[in-house]
Amino acid sequence: FTASCSTQKSNEENPIYKNRNYSVEERVNDLLGRMTLEEKVAQMNMTTLRRLETDEQGNITKPSLDSLLGGPGIGFLESSFTDIADISKRSEVADRYLRENTRLGIPAIQIAECLHGFMAHGATIFPQAIGQGSTWNPELIQDMAKTIAREASLTGVDQALSPLFDLALDPRYGRVEECYGEDPFLVAEIGKAFVTGLQGDPKATVDSIPEGNLMAMAKHYLAYSAPIGGINLGPVSVGARDLRNLHLYPFKKAIQEANIYAVMPSYNELNGIPLHANESMLTDLLREEIGFGGYVFSDYQGIEMLGRFQKTASDAQDAGLRALKAGVEVEAPYPYGFAKLAEMVKSGKADETLIDNAVRHILTAKFKAGLFDKPYHVSEQEQKVIRSDEAKKLAYQVAVESVTLLKNENATLPLDMDKLKSVAVIGPNADRVQYGDYSYTKHKSSGITVLEGISETVGSKVEVRYAEGCGITDLDESGIKKAVETARESDAVVLVIGGTSAVLSGIGWGKEPSDYATCGEGYDRTELSPPGVQPKLIRAIQETGKPVVLVMVHGRPYSIAWENENLPAIVEAWYPGEQGGKAVADILFGNANPSGKLSVSVPKSVGHIPSYYHKKPSGKGYYRQRGTPEKPGRDFVFSSPDALYPFGHGLSYTTFEYSDLKIENKELASSDTLRLSLKVKNIGSVKGKEVVQVYLNDLVSSVTTPLKILKAFDKVEIAPQATATVRFEIPIKEMALWNAEMKQVVEPGGFQIMAGSSSEDIRLKDSFSVK
Amino acid sequence: FTASCSTQKSNEENPIYKNRNYSVEERVNDLLGRMTLEEKVAQMNMTTLRRLETDEQGNITKPSLDSLLGGPGIGFLESSFTDIADISKRSEVADRYLRENTRLGIPAIQIAECLHGFMAHGATIFPQAIGQGSTWNPELIQDMAKTIAREASLTGVDQALSPLFDLALDPRYGRVEECYGEDPFLVAEIGKAFVTGLQGDPKATVDSIPEGNLMAMAKHYLAYSAPIGGINLGPVSVGARDLRNLHLYPFKKAIQEANIYAVMPSYNELNGIPLHANESMLTDLLREEIGFGGYVFSDYQGIEMLGRFQKTASDAQDAGLRALKAGVEVEAPYPYGFAKLAEMVKSGKADETLIDNAVRHILTAKFKAGLFDKPYHVSEQEQKVIRSDEAKKLAYQVAVESVTLLKNENATLPLDMDKLKSVAVIGPNADRVQYGDYSYTKHKSSGITVLEGISETVGSKVEVRYAEGCGITDLDESGIKKAVETARESDAVVLVIGGTSAVLSGIGWGKEPSDYATCGEGYDRTELSPPGVQPKLIRAIQETGKPVVLVMVHGRPYSIAWENENLPAIVEAWYPGEQGGKAVADILFGNANPSGKLSVSVPKSVGHIPSYYHKKPSGKGYYRQRGTPEKPGRDFVFSSPDALYPFGHGLSYTTFEYSDLKIENKELASSDTLRLSLKVKNIGSVKGKEVVQVYLNDLVSSVTTPLKILKAFDKVEIAPQATATVRFEIPIKEMALWNAEMKQVVEPGGFQIMAGSSSEDIRLKDSFSVK
Ligand SMILES: [Mg+2]
Ligand SMILES: [Mg+2]
Ligand SMILES: [Mg+2]
Ligand SMILES: [Mg+2]
Ligand SMILES: [Mg+2]
Repeated sequence: FTASCSTQKSNEENPIYKNRNYSVEERVNDLLGRMTLEEKVAQMNMTTLRRLETDEQGNITKPSLDSLLGGPGIGFLESSFTDIADISKRSEVADRYLRENTRLGIPAIQIAECLHGFMAHGATIFPQAIGQGSTWNPELIQDMAKTIAREASLTGVDQALSPLFDLALDPRYGRVEECYGEDPFLVAEIGKAFVTGLQGDPKATVDSIPEGNLMAMAKHYLAYSAPIGGINLGPVSVGARDLRNLHLYPFKKAIQEANIYAVMPSYNELNGIPLHANESMLTDLLREEIGFGGYVFSDYQGIEMLGRFQKTASDAQDAGLRALKAGVEVEAPYPYGFAKLAEMVKSGKADETLIDNAVRHILTAKFKAGLFDKPYHVSEQEQKVIRSDEAKKLAYQVAVESVTLLKNENATLPLDMDKLKSVAVIGPNADRVQYGDYSYTKHKSSGITVLEGISETVGSKVEVRYAEGCGITDLDESGIKKAVETARESDAVVLVIGGTSAVLSGIGWGKEPSDYATCGEGYDRTELSPPGVQPKLIRAIQETGKPVVLVMVHGRPYSIAWENENLPAIVEAWYPGEQGGKAVADILFGNANPSGKLSVSVPKSVGHIPSYYHKKPSGKGYYRQRGTPEKPGRDFVFSSPDALYPFGHGLSYTTFEYSDLKIENKELASSDTLRLSLKVKNIGSVKGKEVVQVYLNDLVSSVTTPLKILKAFDKVEIAPQATATVRFEIPIKEMALWNAEMKQVVEPGGFQIMAGSSSEDIRLKDSFSVK
Repeated sequence: FTASCSTQKSNEENPIYKNRNYSVEERVNDLLGRMTLEEKVAQMNMTTLRRLETDEQGNITKPSLDSLLGGPGIGFLESSFTDIADISKRSEVADRYLRENTRLGIPAIQIAECLHGFMAHGATIFPQAIGQGSTWNPELIQDMAKTIAREASLTGVDQALSPLFDLALDPRYGRVEECYGEDPFLVAEIGKAFVTGLQGDPKATVDSIPEGNLMAMAKHYLAYSAPIGGINLGPVSVGARDLRNLHLYPFKKAIQEANIYAVMPSYNELNGIPLHANESMLTDLLREEIGFGGYVFSDYQGIEMLGRFQKTASDAQDAGLRALKAGVEVEAPYPYGFAKLAEMVKSGKADETLIDNAVRHILTAKFKAGLFDKPYHVSEQEQKVIRSDEAKKLAYQVAVESVTLLKNENATLPLDMDKLKSVAVIGPNADRVQYGDYSYTKHKSSGITVLEGISETVGSKVEVRYAEGCGITDLDESGIKKAVETARESDAVVLVIGGTSAVLSGIGWGKEPSDYATCGEGYDRTELSPPGVQPKLIRAIQETGKPVVLVMVHGRPYSIAWENENLPAIVEAWYPGEQGGKAVADILFGNANPSGKLSVSVPKSVGHIPSYYHKKPSGKGYYRQRGTPEKPGRDFVFSSPDALYPFGHGLSYTTFEYSDLKIENKELASSDTLRLSLKVKNIGSVKGKEVVQVYLNDLVSSVTTPLKILKAFDKVEIAPQATATVRFEIPIKEMALWNAEMKQVVEPGGFQIMAGSSSEDIRLKDSFSVK
């Protein structure tokens, strides 16, 4: 982006910025003082390690290093998204080059995708984010993220472009799979756990990122996941209170409580201004109101889109300038709007103070992450923990806890392998692995399919018969006949339907399946039914009269009203990761007890959206005459606004009984903490995990507040006939609202507490008041 | 609401307020100075004329008058929604009572519903608002409104609770039928015409409402028509720019350009605050920013809902106080929150200044409307113009111009009565009248059905055979067989499907049909298909192979993708009013040439919403790989975001050719007016009316602007082979945007002009620039 700066090396023996005895601030100041304008601007740009070329011996060539990393250096490097060994090699050579061949020897931050595993061939593939959210188990997600961080950092990665703090509000939107769920509190809790696992303990990361960890990035800031029509990158129009109470909430928690190092603005426009040009959001709100101190990293081509897509910039320089002024500090994936920043400063168009601020944020992160103090080198031996048995076990555990049992009439599940002679495993996703977007493969050899998992689980006890039935989107119905025959010959049917998402880098173990993507980034839908002819397959199998267990492997909620009416058992598996097939099989046959809970409400149909549970009092209709086709009514003439499956719903093979809700103090001040406890008894015969959910309601408020909002939850394992006492602490300030003057206050008055097993299965109620 | 005030009459001979030689302001000041607190509060309340009781001779009893209107009087009276004669009688007796039996003799404002005709037995029923919008003919709508005003004012009504300035953005929402359309400019133009017809020329109404006119009311302020999920009364969350550019725009025009006398706040909460308690919207925006000087009339029970529904008030007094502070000035339909305002002032809870302001606004309207100067009396003879032949002719004309021809393959229409031997008229709405919500009847005897219209039109030339086929929502399919037979025996089929809305007062000519309502207030839907088994009827009739003309009589857009694919001709009739059946018949058989244009985009399916045309550049997808079931893509995997039928679409029996777009001045200042002309030639063989539409685009803007926004249109009648030159003037300030600092500015730069026959059928393009 510029070749005009000096390449002479510093002659100083041990400058302050290279001396770890100085504070980060002193080191940043020292280094900043030494940098030319071109070197500063280089810190705000990125290039990709993929562009490093190798010679015939496989060595990276000096000319490609010079052209990519020479001169003023570069602030950021994109991982090559290849395999562990290749990435490590590129990391090491690039890192050495920057240290030794640039004037100031400033190392780059290497970024990579880590949504549900380090996106590199050879790394462990965990369940997709929506499955992670369905575990309702922050400790487990923290362990998972720690493993992801270790795998990525061992290859030289420093910064994850993860996680998402977006809310899954519209199932048409293909990126719902990347979200933890629809609820701000749940998303914040799971997200903070992910950040803590990735970065390390927030108390420590104030000063530095511990070895083996990564910097995390909160994205997509802000309100990205509610585009009109569910179409990716579409405009978002939202009022000031929903913006803060819904969309901002998890970001604020990640920043204030998990100390996240980076934030990525979202592609969308928010109330008319794209986030990449939105000073009010990126500076006033993010830095001044929320107190974010890290750096702001553009989404890929987000600055370019200001002109090309949203028509709010006339050319590259205009786009870059708008982004700079708004508060974007790094441009990805290549220099476009920031390509000529140095010239723009010199011609008086751009303000160098903004550049200094940005570089200060970036360098501070680099010092804290220890980049200056440790050249990258990791031996092959050290890399053996990548995708180790332990990591796979963790992938299995996350999968087991994410699988959600939606329906189980007459205890159809678990299937009894001592009684069944044969089971038919049918459907397009029965023998496919599906990981979701931001995976490096979906080749079968990379993980365990449900069919494989079942075969392994039942061994020789049950005969397993397989029929694909139909493809994912293929309109060919010819395979349904064989599937029906297979079902007829068997004692029970496991019908595995669903979708598939794109493979991002496409460098897997072999030829990737050619299935059209039906979900993921840019794969939005106008219906929420299983794609293609799968609904026909389902009906045909149901008509056999055999007991049918429907297993859904996919990325977005399906509105399966017919299936819910006509099939005895329904299992939501989401995209369950590389060990998902085994986890599903263990649940189907009772080796594991399901404990996932929906992190999203499932709408009755696409015409019911949005179906999220945290509606305002006026959000579910006034007339309360829910209609049916047989007896039309009001608030939907032929239906009701209620969800098909509500937020927080998920069954178990045992039964939990709630009792003894106790509130320590029912008269509280707004600065107090509400303390409560309750008892949960496992009255069944198998051990199980229950997610105890606590919802609150501000009974009367000057501005509207949800009838129910999640403010605490805990996942507890309880042995048969045992009772667990579960305790919660909820700071009263969590119930603050934004009043008519946009002041955040807790209003005095009465509040209701609702504790239960789902947002619609409230078992215990009580109330308290705030003075 | 209080009985404590003095009932002594003023002894003064000719007080200033009764003397029309004084100015309105002087009269208001004089009267206000004489009023007790209780009398003031009475002005802010309403009761209903229905509660007046009659004795055996049919005379209204003195005790019922005393109890309803005695003491401090009453500000507003609700019409009894009965028949013309009864309303007139009640009006006269009540008016005389208030003048003669209350201390100050202050007459009341009588309100009535006038959405598509005065809602009283005996008045003319015009097409529903969405049909009015489809005429794109403001002059015609002005004539219609003038007729409505005359019919209502002759019975003693003073104030119409009409029209709506809401935008039809979500077809699930049952009140879309009450909206003129989805576009702010079109809604403003049609709405202003309605207001001018109702009230009189804005230049005159600054001072007074001319005789025979009514005061109009702009509702529902603000953003009412975009509730989440399409559920009536649901919360609305919208950003500051969309709020102004979309929702506020028509209200602003009605206030600033049509001088509308009253505004009704909407039921919904907007960004967390119900409009009935929203000071920022009702005072800061409405009065200070927009300059509204009339009075604010609550929606029915809108104050009550603050507590009962939205949970933002603890009791009636709290609700009343919040409403008063926000800027609500009249409570409807009975005293609840405003019942104890006088006591609340006395106890120091309520501020008397707010009451004085409110009463000043109300009295000002009363003086301007001439209420003080003319007791109500109208003879039976004078009332003969109500539902006169002239009025019915106007109802016919509005219907003819509202009917919109969506598809006409191979010139299926018009049907040729010289060639056809027989026509089958089939479907649940073939022999039903459907007027839409806010009608006083839907009994068949009140208007002309499509079947009746066709029979009348074809006379003995064509044999007309009728079969209902099925009911509107009934699931009984047994009638389809007979309908199929009827179709088979005939040369062509007119298939009249659709919905029905509630009858509001239910005091029609006879027993009302018992059909379940499928549209209207509180009748929201989750699908956009014809209700009940009508889709099956349509398919069965299509399978006969006969030429089928689908006519839709209903209140919301239907997503008829299959029908569009499989039927040769499709006619959108909306709810076409009492003369609608004749208008439809004349169009079907070529006695009239269709000229309606869609005022709403019709989505491909309910999963595509919102489908409105005025999307931002990023609102229709990024990837531009529109998918199909056969070849999945992106920006909807299996579909495209484009509308099934776009805004502005509507076919004619002739063809119009556009040419010669000329722009007077291509370099303009922001205070200038863009002047352009173009030519339209009728190159067909029948005369027709074309709606020439002009869309603009601000090419690059600091905040996002729509790719296309309607800024001018004209409906012109052109004889065969004739050419019309159409001229437009567009003030450049119409292109002002709300910039990052929320200042309204026109930004210098290039603009594109697109002129055409629909929002997707642009025939001519050019550009201009603003300095
Ligand atoms: Mg590194
Ligand atoms: Mg899918
Ligand atoms: Mg409260
Ligand atoms: Mg009157
Ligand atoms: Mg411009």
